[in-house]
Amino acid sequence: MPKKMTPKQLRDAIRRGQWRQPTSGAAGGYVQANLVMMPKEYAFPFLLFCVRNPKPCPILDVLEPGQISPNIAPGADIRTDIPKYRIYKNGELEKEVESVEGLFNEDTVSYLLGCSFSFEKALMDAGIPLRNVEEGKNVSMYVTNIQCASAGPFHAPLVVTMRPMTPAQAVRAAQITTRFHLTHGAPVHLGDPGSIGIKDLGSPDFGDPVTIRPGEIPVFWACGVTSTVAATSHPIPLVITHAPGHMFVSDLRDEELTLF
Amino acid sequence: MPKKMTPKQLRDAIRRGQWRQPTSGAAGGYVQANLVMMPKEYAFPFLLFCVRNPKPCPILDVLEPGQISPNIAPGADIRTDIPKYRIYKNGELEKEVESVEGLFNEDTVSYLLGCSFSFEKALMDAGIPLRNVEEGKNVSMYVTNIQCASAGPFHAPLVVTMRPMTPAQAVRAAQITTRFHLTHGAPVHLGDPGSIGIKDLGSPDFGDPVTIRPGEIPVFWACGVTSTVAATSHPIPLVITHAPGHMFVSDLRDEELTLF
Repeated sequence: MPKKMTPKQLRDAIRRGQWRQPTSGAAGGYVQANLVMMPKEYAFPFLLFCVRNPKPCPILDVLEPGQISPNIAPGADIRTDIPKYRIYKNGELEKEVESVEGLFNEDTVSYLLGCSFSFEKALMDAGIPLRNVEEGKNVSMYVTNIQCASAGPFHAPLVVTMRPMTPAQAVRAAQITTRFHLTHGAPVHLGDPGSIGIKDLGSPDFGDPVTIRPGEIPVFWACGVTSTVAATSHPIPLVITHAPGHMFVSDLRDEELTLF
Repeated sequence: MPKKMTPKQLRDAIRRGQWRQPTSGAAGGYVQANLVMMPKEYAFPFLLFCVRNPKPCPILDVLEPGQISPNIAPGADIRTDIPKYRIYKNGELEKEVESVEGLFNEDTVSYLLGCSFSFEKALMDAGIPLRNVEEGKNVSMYVTNIQCASAGPFHAPLVVTMRPMTPAQAVRAAQITTRFHLTHGAPVHLGDPGSIGIKDLGSPDFGDPVTIRPGEIPVFWACGVTSTVAATSHPIPLVITHAPGHMFVSDLRDEELTLF
């Protein structure tokens, strides 16, 4: 397998069962996406949820009912080209699988939503160190007391990621991530965790805790996990998502998504 | 009537039948919107059309089936608070009316989409003269040979507005309008009209022709009329839009919509 794969090479390896690990850092420079699939009966209200909450749920692509190949990755197969999927029945996680060919049908609508890998690379390119990368951990994620705008039956609290940095780095990070409006954009909060309902930074709701050094403040970005929380907030017979960290890798370059 | 009205005062005057003229320049500083209404049967594909074509169809608000009061103007009534509506049956314009109370029902979904009034004010504030304003005309609009991404049964060519200016002003205008990504954003083209399928700048498809002075080039922005063309591209029994220039005036300030 070549050291630096193209998105197509990576997706082909996934489809052949040769890649089942997380996709972070793979096919570098290309946009990776969160996946949500659900029956078309719920297609409008879920799309509306995403439209109303663009920071946690930035829409990269929506496949029409039964559409298999994303517009942002022609030739790919949304049913097989993610290393690991999660199956939710009536809002409850049932299992993880490596293909959803048997569950996908002509009523299935697929949503691909932006993920923070794009702006993390831009932050590191600008010399802002990322503690989770330095410590080899998953980013820390927290459920906040900020309610997203609901749509139809879908509702969710805003879930955020947290990256510790100095105040000067936080200002620079706000500038840099502003350009990435389709991959969560600028921070939603910085400083006091308690004011957005986070009791203990050392106990994230998802991911791992990371070290916060003296002189650093926590900086919070909207997180794509919010889309899974919303999609499973109503007892739909079947919802499919990617497994955390196992993303869909598109043919879009990170820089194609920036606003300026 | 007060000289400078708030959005609520303007909407109340419209509702009482005391304001039937275009809304350009009224309640200055507040976001005005294009309207499209259609039955919920088509709600998902039309929302998808807007999502796939954010430059001509930037989504400001979507009202759920039967919802009367927009989220961006609490207390307003979408059925009565626009000075003039257009009624399309099976894709054909039937008539203009001053209220759609009798046509609206619990299946009606309403879309409010960004309009260029917001960035026109920002351009003038930055000292870039707008020929259509100087000459007291409607902005020139043209149907291009650029096809929008289709969604379900909806398709449309991109419709653009044109404003003549010097090349240096065009660069500055690109910078300024980049901030207004929810009201059409940066230009889609500048210079040669023929390369986007426009044969004669002197004969716009909608609006009025304006003077182009020596040393000026035409600069083109995506236009909200595209949403009407798309909504009427399929023979739906009933589609309602605002009448050109007679917009919905929201409680959002222009500056609340900017990205940075």
